[in-house]
Amino acid sequence: MINKLVEKIKKLDAPIVMGLDPMMNYIPEQIVSKAFAEYGETIEGACEAVWQYNKGIIDATYDLIPAVKPQIAMYEQFGVEGLKVFQKTVDYCKEKDLVVIGDIKRGDIGSTSTAYAVGHLGKVKVGSKSFKTFDEDFVTVNPYLGSDGVNPFLDVCREEKKGIFVLVKTSNPSSGEFQDRLVDGRPLYEIVGEQVAKWGESHMGDTYSYVGAVVGATYPEMGKVLRKLMPKTYILVPGYGAQGGKAADLVHYFNEDGLGAIVNSSRGIIAAYKQEKYASFGAVNYADASRQAVIDMREDIMGALRSAGK
Amino acid sequence: MINKLVEKIKKLDAPIVMGLDPMMNYIPEQIVSKAFAEYGETIEGACEAVWQYNKGIIDATYDLIPAVKPQIAMYEQFGVEGLKVFQKTVDYCKEKDLVVIGDIKRGDIGSTSTAYAVGHLGKVKVGSKSFKTFDEDFVTVNPYLGSDGVNPFLDVCREEKKGIFVLVKTSNPSSGEFQDRLVDGRPLYEIVGEQVAKWGESHMGDTYSYVGAVVGATYPEMGKVLRKLMPKTYILVPGYGAQGGKAADLVHYFNEDGLGAIVNSSRGIIAAYKQEKYASFGAVNYADASRQAVIDMREDIMGALRSAGK
Repeated sequence: MINKLVEKIKKLDAPIVMGLDPMMNYIPEQIVSKAFAEYGETIEGACEAVWQYNKGIIDATYDLIPAVKPQIAMYEQFGVEGLKVFQKTVDYCKEKDLVVIGDIKRGDIGSTSTAYAVGHLGKVKVGSKSFKTFDEDFVTVNPYLGSDGVNPFLDVCREEKKGIFVLVKTSNPSSGEFQDRLVDGRPLYEIVGEQVAKWGESHMGDTYSYVGAVVGATYPEMGKVLRKLMPKTYILVPGYGAQGGKAADLVHYFNEDGLGAIVNSSRGIIAAYKQEKYASFGAVNYADASRQAVIDMREDIMGALRSAGK
Repeated sequence: MINKLVEKIKKLDAPIVMGLDPMMNYIPEQIVSKAFAEYGETIEGACEAVWQYNKGIIDATYDLIPAVKPQIAMYEQFGVEGLKVFQKTVDYCKEKDLVVIGDIKRGDIGSTSTAYAVGHLGKVKVGSKSFKTFDEDFVTVNPYLGSDGVNPFLDVCREEKKGIFVLVKTSNPSSGEFQDRLVDGRPLYEIVGEQVAKWGESHMGDTYSYVGAVVGATYPEMGKVLRKLMPKTYILVPGYGAQGGKAADLVHYFNEDGLGAIVNSSRGIIAAYKQEKYASFGAVNYADASRQAVIDMREDIMGALRSAGK
């Protein structure tokens, strides 16, 4: 699946992943009122609105982007009904041949980690049969529990030819509280990054490993260091746009081959119509605004890469 | 909810939480074959078996234990159907007046962390209304992302009078890979533990804070240090029994008042009938074996506490 991701990025000239993190206040009024008219102001009504909103955005952008990253928390908050929409969204994106990165940030140990890996990337056994359930292509994984937490994911990835992105340095302001603490004079995120590179060595695709890393766009100097520490690791970069990360800073996350990183934007794309820049589209044409935001983001990043000679 | 937990522990003389982590190979044949006869060898069949298995154990033990800890991964592996059983299990345990600790180990940032907090402990807003969804009493939280990840949970806890247990030192063999790394000469888990105590200061119940910590039974020396660093913190202790933690070691996790810790056992209780010690119960009476295992565990721990004068 890392090979497919790299191929799609090259073909579309777009190292971009669209974060499908729907919030109720992003969803245009016409969608919400139609869903509430049908299902009432209920969980079902909210879930129908989320689904229609997602579908509109996916239909308007799928030919431009290699991958999507649905954030499971935004669905899980609606309980079982919300997770049905998560499932439906994953399935629909795969129908559109998008690579699906489930942003689940799970992390546990042993058989528990195996259960997460099986449920999100593999097949669950029932008697003599086995079934796919959520079935994303990649998921994000939290490394705090060490190799016992990550290895079960790697086992399933090897079998299914899928991948993970391990949290190394997250984009939020307080990420340094633990991640930046100095261990033998070096920040913890470097130690985690080295371990990610090591896990990746025995899990290689054609040119990149299928053990990726999450490194926030908001810390470009750290991104530069981590890029060198993990040369074969694909870096998933959150924090572009709304969180403050700029394209010129992002070039450090890419290798000289112009590959090695994929930049996420969530709100900046899916709620583009709410920005002044795209206000002329109006709420009714919210999906067209999202399409324009993808085009602009691609140009922004590819322009910066060209300027940097990558 | 921390007050209720402490009260129930005192009343039942049982600092015990039962881990509801059902694996297919724990479930007695008579339950599996009945579920498969009704639903086939399907996800639905597996989920029905899990539910009947859980219900049998809960019915046989609820009057002896203050709390249960369903591990969501074991349900999530079956996708949406599995999460329905998770929900059903949470609801049923609450009907039985058990305190429910959702072992979800979620951790994200900002609005995403809020979504998890809302979905598991609070209410999700839909238009002018709000709804409870998974509605556990406590959940476990991963601290790797720092305060940005934990504060949204604390906000919801304050509103709902609920609580969290933050991973500090986990019970698994490789937990030291990152958690034990020395920061200014002190292991990272101590730094995290201090932060947990700090978060707890402004979130106090009557005697203990509603910000708890997870510290594995397999590292008693570290437990001793962490107990002192976090005097007002309830410690959730996994790793007793099957993972190797012994009652004599566990006394260090308790304060002098005999409180401050709650010990988890999953397999050791719910699959007790598979142990030689309880084999005479037979698979048919698996729930009675679980009840006996609870009684024995309580005696083991309370005996060790008495010996230690706590």
